[in-house]
Order: sequence, then structure tokens, then C-alpha cells
Amino acid sequence: MGQVSSIEKAKPVSMKQIAIKDAFWNDYIELVREVVVPYQWEAINDRVEGAERSGAVSNFKIAAGLEQGEYYGFVFQDTDVAKWLEAVAYLLVAKRDEALEQVADDMIDIIEKAQQPSGYLNTYFTIKEPEGKWTNLTECHELYTAGHMIEAGVAYYEATGKRKLLDIVCRIADDIANVFGDGPGQIAGYDGHQEIELALVKLYKTTGESKYLELSRYFVDKRGEQPSFFIEEAERRGWTTHWNKGRIHIEPEYFQAHKPVREQDVAVGHAVRVVYMLAGMADVARETGDASLLEACRRLWNNIVSKQMYITGGIGSMAQGEAFSVDYDLPNDTVYSETCASIGLIFFAQRMLQLDPDSRYADVLERALYNTVIGGMSRDGRHFFYVNPLEVTPDVCNGRNKNFNHIKPVRQEWFGCACCPPNIARLLASLGDYMYSVQNNVVYSHLYIGGETELELNGARVTIVQQAELPWEGKVRYEIGLDADAEFTLALRLPDWASSRTVKINGEAYALDANVVKGYAMLERSWKSGDVVELELTMPVMKVRSHPLVRHNAGKVALQRGPLVYCLEEADNGPLLQQYTLQRDAEPHIAFDEKLAGGVKLIRIDASKLDAESWGQALYRADHAPSADSVTATFIPYFAWANRGKGEMTVWVREQS
Amino acid sequence: MGQVSSIEKAKPVSMKQIAIKDAFWNDYIELVREVVVPYQWEAINDRVEGAERSGAVSNFKIAAGLEQGEYYGFVFQDTDVAKWLEAVAYLLVAKRDEALEQVADDMIDIIEKAQQPSGYLNTYFTIKEPEGKWTNLTECHELYTAGHMIEAGVAYYEATGKRKLLDIVCRIADDIANVFGDGPGQIAGYDGHQEIELALVKLYKTTGESKYLELSRYFVDKRGEQPSFFIEEAERRGWTTHWNKGRIHIEPEYFQAHKPVREQDVAVGHAVRVVYMLAGMADVARETGDASLLEACRRLWNNIVSKQMYITGGIGSMAQGEAFSVDYDLPNDTVYSETCASIGLIFFAQRMLQLDPDSRYADVLERALYNTVIGGMSRDGRHFFYVNPLEVTPDVCNGRNKNFNHIKPVRQEWFGCACCPPNIARLLASLGDYMYSVQNNVVYSHLYIGGETELELNGARVTIVQQAELPWEGKVRYEIGLDADAEFTLALRLPDWASSRTVKINGEAYALDANVVKGYAMLERSWKSGDVVELELTMPVMKVRSHPLVRHNAGKVALQRGPLVYCLEEADNGPLLQQYTLQRDAEPHIAFDEKLAGGVKLIRIDASKLDAESWGQALYRADHAPSADSVTATFIPYFAWANRGKGEMTVWVREQS
Repeated sequence: MGQVSSIEKAKPVSMKQIAIKDAFWNDYIELVREVVVPYQWEAINDRVEGAERSGAVSNFKIAAGLEQGEYYGFVFQDTDVAKWLEAVAYLLVAKRDEALEQVADDMIDIIEKAQQPSGYLNTYFTIKEPEGKWTNLTECHELYTAGHMIEAGVAYYEATGKRKLLDIVCRIADDIANVFGDGPGQIAGYDGHQEIELALVKLYKTTGESKYLELSRYFVDKRGEQPSFFIEEAERRGWTTHWNKGRIHIEPEYFQAHKPVREQDVAVGHAVRVVYMLAGMADVARETGDASLLEACRRLWNNIVSKQMYITGGIGSMAQGEAFSVDYDLPNDTVYSETCASIGLIFFAQRMLQLDPDSRYADVLERALYNTVIGGMSRDGRHFFYVNPLEVTPDVCNGRNKNFNHIKPVRQEWFGCACCPPNIARLLASLGDYMYSVQNNVVYSHLYIGGETELELNGARVTIVQQAELPWEGKVRYEIGLDADAEFTLALRLPDWASSRTVKINGEAYALDANVVKGYAMLERSWKSGDVVELELTMPVMKVRSHPLVRHNAGKVALQRGPLVYCLEEADNGPLLQQYTLQRDAEPHIAFDEKLAGGVKLIRIDASKLDAESWGQALYRADHAPSADSVTATFIPYFAWANRGKGEMTVWVREQS
Repeated sequence: MGQVSSIEKAKPVSMKQIAIKDAFWNDYIELVREVVVPYQWEAINDRVEGAERSGAVSNFKIAAGLEQGEYYGFVFQDTDVAKWLEAVAYLLVAKRDEALEQVADDMIDIIEKAQQPSGYLNTYFTIKEPEGKWTNLTECHELYTAGHMIEAGVAYYEATGKRKLLDIVCRIADDIANVFGDGPGQIAGYDGHQEIELALVKLYKTTGESKYLELSRYFVDKRGEQPSFFIEEAERRGWTTHWNKGRIHIEPEYFQAHKPVREQDVAVGHAVRVVYMLAGMADVARETGDASLLEACRRLWNNIVSKQMYITGGIGSMAQGEAFSVDYDLPNDTVYSETCASIGLIFFAQRMLQLDPDSRYADVLERALYNTVIGGMSRDGRHFFYVNPLEVTPDVCNGRNKNFNHIKPVRQEWFGCACCPPNIARLLASLGDYMYSVQNNVVYSHLYIGGETELELNGARVTIVQQAELPWEGKVRYEIGLDADAEFTLALRLPDWASSRTVKINGEAYALDANVVKGYAMLERSWKSGDVVELELTMPVMKVRSHPLVRHNAGKVALQRGPLVYCLEEADNGPLLQQYTLQRDAEPHIAFDEKLAGGVKLIRIDASKLDAESWGQALYRADHAPSADSVTATFIPYFAWANRGKGEMTVWVREQS
């Protein structure tokens, strides 16, 4: 472990510098703009028929004294408003929209009125339980809720230049800085759900106020110290729990509070908490040069991606605690794989890329984005998965519903606990933040998404126009615009899925071999305006297998092409997908389905299918192998599943051995 | 469906007519006599250190006014005493034991004092909730508890000729006959847990009182009638539940009360309830000649054994409700497969054999007996499985304990809800009841277990001395003893696991082909005293595969030899059993392990084992198959698993495709 200080300069290129123009992603971003964000506004205003009641906006109105009524929803319901505002801010960066901005401004006016003179802002504790303020950090998400509002305040200021929400959230943060700390009368603790840590670093970056960075570091450092803050807090409170009349039961692992964060080496507990925590830890490590914190981030990253991550970029393999299980325990059917957890993994990966531009971070970021995240939303923008299984049998979900209660074979309209839909919205609306970063004299291109970017590099203005055909083909083209010739390096990510890759500059082959650093092709030269770079990534269908320690996938294979993981679905293959076996040497063929999910490339491949008819009635037969028929199996991209009604689906399929 | 009346004469040969002398089974029966029954007596008297408190005996003493104290245990705790007495009775049949009989007599004296003048006997409602008597049949097992005491009373009378407990249980039954019925002031209902039905038929058979048969039929007929008795009862009670302060939630399927029993065609709900119900239904069908009831028994039998039974004879594939799931849903790891459910399946199979001597019933009976039932008990007689998984990974049971809370990788000492251990004891102690039956002039030999039997056949005394080498070899020898030559048929079951079978009579081959009826070799002749029949059943190692509709076993194979299902265990094969694949053409070899479980035959077979070392760190790899090593896999009989500490186990193993 070297010094971290040398890479403090790495920074993402902001979405403010990017106009996305991409056949695949513009559809999603427009969906967020035209459908998701307006729909979510209706949902959090309780105006969507048939959807679960939200209460989120009305809670603010009640807290602001503008409405009479009772608090409704979870203790963290405010965050739905915050995440909606954050998504709106990102949309406004890309395109001004006065009407939308007015709606947001009006909401911010309400929020301002709901803030207490101290700076405290939380409608649950304001309306329902004022005496309980700051008494149950373990369960009540007060700092988490504050963190989301801080993210919204920063985003809205960055988007519009309007300070009102930024000032509100600075007052929130100032209040928190007064309340928390090791001084007399302060609370020497931290939240049960990480989020404030990364939010405070954003606030520090936008305001330049180092006290916010210090406060973030304080929360990171306190977590897991012994004796346990959660237990001390429970003692003070008389061991009550927020959730019922009973006594609180604290499992420190659930909150990653079992040991100090720097000593953790296996990801445990609630998966979203883990990755939000890690994003915040990476932020603090970057901004403070804290080498031991970075080392912990790397260790936990390695544990997650090499022992606990689904091929879809999903994390959290059990419903119990929405949590990580044990290493290599990756059941495909009872899986949790929450959409928000993959979004958090993307946050974490983006931070790691800033600390260490290594394509392995971007590979995982891309895997989560193209599979679990966009799979979490239907193509109508109105239906969402909270949980993203890799194998679904609707009859079993129904018949054995205690084990499968969390598994929904079709996307749902809205959730009472609506963390995932607004998280998808804010991620997709801010996609520009994940595409490039700059370190010293190097421009890193992490994701292949078409668009126009403007950078400043050593004082020189550089424009980059990227065209990309992903995820369907691996062709990428860059055109460089400059006011004058400039020396810099364009670093192109060489994805783990590309079996070969060629680069041409102005039509001439560029030898990569000596110029690949940590998975990036380093194109270092004196660039002229109009230079064209062509990257060609071959994108064969890959047969992917799991580590032999993964019990559930032994003898099975998954298909992947480019960043897209594929799956078998009942709509194409009939039910009883377990009856399929892929031939070991079968050649896949690509086909196009223009109707499915806006048009997707399918994979067709020879398979055998066990014949249940000829087997007879016996449940077990000795020395008799079931006969099998030769069939063609049709795979669709995982993200496009469950758009054709309820049916079976599986990512992993047996293969001939 | 023909008339049932013609087969009413079929009846099992009673254990009173049989002296078991069998190398394999005598060990078990001695274990029951020497260890299980004495141990269980200590347990139900709360004298076993470290075991869960029972309270069962002390509840009777309190109800009898012999002790002060509070009721302890489940609402059906009395049944542990009843089942213990029943097992004692069966032991006394085989061997007089004055000391044991005295302990039982003393217990019966206490029971007598606990009985109320009306005949009502239930210590829970006597001590704890007298006002709640007969108000919550849905949940409180009152008739179930009575049923077990009735079984004990019948067994103890049959064993000892002592009437005291029989008189007690007649008074119980008479009281029930007064309380229940369609008359004014009577309760027109039935119990939430079936058991009374089969018990009343036993009481009828022993006493000759047809009112008990009528009462049994009444309970069978009422179940599932609409409007629901459980809902009417809940209405009367104000919707209280026995279990907490909340409101009762009734799922009629759980109790098989969703429709009349004659209309049921799929086994649903709590598995033990289903098979106890079916045993009672078959009893009533047999005794009353009720064809529609028999038809329902056949339909549900077929559903269970052809769609919902594990290869081990286990039933109930989900912990939720300890219940049947949906057809072909047979997960091996989260399975329930309660020991008591397999015992109930044996009860049901025995009744079906009396109605229809068809080897398919005996095949299932034997499968459950040799695998799940004896697997449910350790070789020390002091540790028991309630749940019998077919695949165990201890780390996962521990790490993902919400899904696996019911799965114990090692046998447990005693259970607060101690239904299974005394059920094993009473079954093993009464094994003689399951070996033979007689129909008209045919003696059916269902199970190959050594022993001496004495029958009366058309007035002639017939003795049969059976010698058998099961489960290790398929050699069976019968010697017939007669006072004079006699014409009758000896019907030998030809098990589903025997790949070939030969019969010799007095050394001469006997042609089977034309003489097989419903899976039995019908040896019809004029027998002379001293005639010797030799049956040889070849017992190759069978590779068993599941119906292609069983998702969990696709591509997998299980080994079976004779009645024994085999499994891989970590103690022989190391951990990570998913890494094994059996070669398709590998030849199994039999070996002997004298130390394991009293001496067992092992199966060794060539396999390949995925090599996790050479795979590297990556969780997923494209176009790279893991390398595999050639190894020898060692299989042990399933019943002998978990006798060597905590470790992985699996019945189903992948095979080369």
C-alpha cells in the first residue's frame, strides 16, 4: 500500500460536461424523464390508483404546518422525496424544464418550512415522535434520511445554481455536527444505515467546508468501535424497539458494526448498507489520503466480487436481513439481489475507479448497470423489481411462499418501502457521472455510451464525441476536438468480456500490447483536432461458468454477450426450464427480436430437453435415463425478462459434461 | 371400483404371532428396549440433563391431584406419555418385563386419577384452561391427544390383558361420542389434527363396539364440509388463537379441511396430518366397505408417491406448515421430511396393503422404514432427527439460518415438541405388525425380516420361520411347519429394487412368470411340514433418477442398493460435495465398514471432482471449464449419516451427461 495522496487528483467527469446521445441509453433516460420521474411524483403524492400509499409528500406538508394529518409510512419515508428531487436535478442538468423545476422549487419551499430552527429535518420525528429524536439511531435512519436530503441539496444546487435546498442541507449538517461527536453532551455514535458518510463528502466537495469531511470521517471511524454504541443507546432508551412493543434485538453484523470498518474483511449483513458504507469509506479515503481505509475498501471489494456477487452484478444472497450470506453461497432462486444494492455497488465502483483506475472496477460497474439495474425496471417505467432472482418458478413462489415471499415473478407497481424505483431514476439520470474520469493527463473512458463531452486538460479544452453500439455490438468511435494540438492520454477500458480488441487512430492500427495498464489501452500522443479513434471489441457469446465452490451453479453455464447476461424464459422455451441441457460444443446464433423490450438480440443455441412425457408416471426409476429431445434454446438478455407475463426464468442452465 | 366388501377379510398378522429374529432389526428393537424407551421415560419425567424440559408426566400428576405445579409444554404434551405406553406395550408382547410393566401400571394409575368423571382426559385443559375445553379443536389437538391415549389403551390391553387403560380410553371415547355429533347440543366438528380416526377403529377392533367405528366415520365424513367448522368454532370463540393474543388465521388446506376428504385429489398441508388422516380413512373404508373412501385413499396415495415423495420415503417438502408443497417440488436442502410423516406414511401403506395386497404399497413402506425412519435415530438411541434433509451444508444452515432453521446437521437430544422419538420407538417395537398379512387362503410376506410366525389358516396351524439377510443381501429362506399337509398360497413380495428374483422350493426352481400377481410371487401348492422356500433377490447398485419434472434433481443421480438409499458424506469424501460428478459408466464396488453404524456396506464408485485450486480466484470465468480430478466417491447408507460429527451430506449427485 503506497500513499493515497498521489491519486487524490483523480476525479470523475461530471454529467454537467456530458450530453449523452446513445441509442440504448437515451431511451432509458427519456423514460426516466417522461415516465419514471412524473410517475414517482404522482406516487409520492398518493395519486397513483392501485399503488401502495406513500405519504411522503404529505408528511412534509404536515410537518410544515400546511396540512393536518398523521404521519404515514416508514420512518425513512422522507427519502423518497429527496431521491426524487435528486433525480429531477440530474434531469435539469441535461435539459432545462421550467415546469419541472417549478414543481421542485415548490417542494423545496415546503421542505424549508418543515425544517426546525435547529436545522433538524425529519418529518417522522417532527410529526409523530418528537421526544424520540436521536434516541434510536440503530433503527430509525435519521442520519440516512438526512444524507439523502443532503445529496438532493447538492445535486439541485449543482444543476440549477439555486441555493435554497443547499442552505437547508447545510443547516441539517451543521445541526448534526453539533449533536454528534465525542465532546460533552454529544452523541458519540453513528447511524444504523450508512448514507450520511458519502453525502457529507459531496457536501464538502460542493461547499469546500472541510467540517463536513471531518464529520463524515467521524461516522466512518466510530462504526464498530467497542463497546457498541447501539447497545449503549439501547440501554439509555430502555431497550425499546421502533418496530413493535417488544425489546430490541441487535445483530451488529447486520449494520456492519461488529468491528471497526478498517478491520472488516468479509462483507456481512444488509447488502445496501455495506455498499453505501464502502462508497463513503472510499470517498473519505480519497479526500483524506487514508491508506488503511482504502485498504479496507479493496479487501471488501475483493470479497464481494470474488465470493459473493451474482453474475448479474447482484449482491445479497438471502432475504433474511436482505443480506450477504456466506462466501460462495449464491442460491439463484431464494436470492435477494436488491436493485438498490447493485446501485450501491455502482457507487462504490465509481469511487474505487477514482482511487485506482483499474478496469476491474468498471467491469463490475457495467455488469451491475446492464443487468440488475435496468432489469429492475420494466420498459414502461412504471413497474419495478426490488429483488432480482436468477431463477424463478412461479408455481413454487406461490406454493412455497414463506421461502419465496420476497420473489415476485412480475415487476410491481410501487412499494411501500420504495427505495428502489427512485434509486434507479437518480442513477440513470446521472449516468454521465460514470462515463469518464480524469487523472493528471489521462482521460479514462470507462463506459461505452455515446455522447459529447467537454473537458479541460492542463488548461486545454478537449471535446470528445463518442459513438457506441453497445450493448449489441462492440464498436466505439471517438472524435477529438481541440483548439490546438495537445499531449494527453486517452485511456480506453478493455472490458473483461471482449475476446479481442483493436484500436485504430485515424484509420491506422495502434498496437495495444505494450500500452495496456490495469485494463486500459493507454493512447498517449499529441492529439490533433479531428483525430478519430476506433475501438473494436469482439463480442462473442461466452459460456460463463462459476467457481467450483459455488454449489448452486456446479455443472451449469450461463451465456453472456458483451456486458449482457442472458437467460432462458418460459415465453420462448416453454415451462420446466430445468429440463434444458446445453450441448458442450453447440454454436450460438444471434437473432434479433424487435418487439421485446425495445428490440434485443437473442441467442439461439442447440440444447437437449428432457422428455417428461416418455418417462411415465414413476417419480423415480432405476437404471433408466430420461430421454431427451434436440431443441433450440432461446436466450434473451436478463434485463428484458418478465416483460411478457408471468413465467419461469433461469440464468444458469445445465450443460453436457 | 369394485366392491370393497370382498377384501374386508384381509388383515395383518399381529406382532403377537411373530418373534423377530433378525440380525439387522433385532439391534434396533433391542435399542428401543434397552435405551430409547428407558431414555424417553427419563425425558418425559424431566430427568435428562441438558435435554429440553418435557413436563409430560408431571402434567398428569398435577391433573391427578398428586402434585402441585403448573402445566408445562405443548397443548398435546400428554401424547408423549401415551406413545411411550404404546411402545412399552409392544415391547411387552415380545418379552415380558415385570419391572417395566410395573412402571407402566403405575403411570396408568396416575392417568386414571387424571381422568374426569365425564371420561374427559386431557391435562392441559384440566389444569390450565378448564373453560376452554372443546372450544378450539382447530388448534388444540384434544381429539388427537385422546386418539393417542386410545392407541395406548388398546395396545396395553392386547399386550398384557389388563383392562384398566382400555377402560379409561373407552370412557374417553364414550365421552367424545356424547360431545360430538349432529344432534342438539353436540359439536358437529372434528379435530385440527387427525389421529382419533385411526385410533377409534383400533378400539372398535379390540372391543367389538361398532359405535367407535361409527364415531370414526363421523369425523372422516365431517372434515372439509362447508360451511367450515373451524370458522364456526372461531366465531363462537371470538376468533381467539391458542398461540398468542392475536386473532386466529385459518388456512383450511393446512388441516385438509378445504373440501370433503372424498373430493381431495392432491395431498396438501401438514404432511403428518395428511397421512394420519389417510390411515384412518383406509381403516374406515376397510371396515365399512366404503368404496368412495377407498378411491380417495388411492388417489391421494398416487399423488403422494408419484409426485410428492422423496426417494428416502420422506414427505413434506417445506418447513412452512411442515407441509406438502406443489407437485414435483422436492428441494433437497430446505426439505422438511419429518420422521413422523414417514411413520404416518407407513401406517397408511400398511392399511392399503390390507385393502389391496399390491407390492407398490409395501415398496413404499419399506423405503420409508429403511431410510427416513431409522435415519431419524442415532445408533446410540439418544439422538433424533425431526427433519430429514437429503442435502446438508452446515455452513449454509448456519449462515442462512432463516431458511435453514429447521435443518439440523446433527441429531438432537430431545425436542420440546417430542413427537418423533416416541413415534420411532412405537413403530420399531411393533414391527411385527408390518411383516405379514393374510387374505383368504394367501399368506403375504411383505417385509424380509427374520423371525418365527405362527398363523391359523383355514383352521390349520402354520408356522413360518423366515431367515433374511436384508438389507445387505437379498437372500431369504422360509421353512414351513405344519401339523398336516395344507393347501395355501405363500405370496412373496418381489421388491421394486430386485433386478432379478428366483424362487426355489425344496431346492427346485419354481417358475415365477405366470405366478406373479400385483408384485407378489404366488406360491400356491399343497405344503408339507419342513418345506423350504428360498428366495433370491439380486441387489445390484442402482442408479436412480428422478422424473424430469423434479427441478432439483435434473442431471443428478442417487445410488440405491436393495431398500437402502445411499448418500455422500463429508467424513468420507471431504467437503464441497457439489464438486462430485459420477461417471456414467462407472462400476460401483461394494465394501464393508464394520465401524460405521454397527457395520454397513459402502459403495465406492469412480467420480470426477471439480478442482477449486486450479480454477483461481475469479468467481466467474468465460469459456473455461474447471478442471476435474479422478477420484473415488464413497457412499454410505442414508440411514447411517450424521454419526461422525457435523459435515456435508448429499443423496443426489450430478452425473456425467
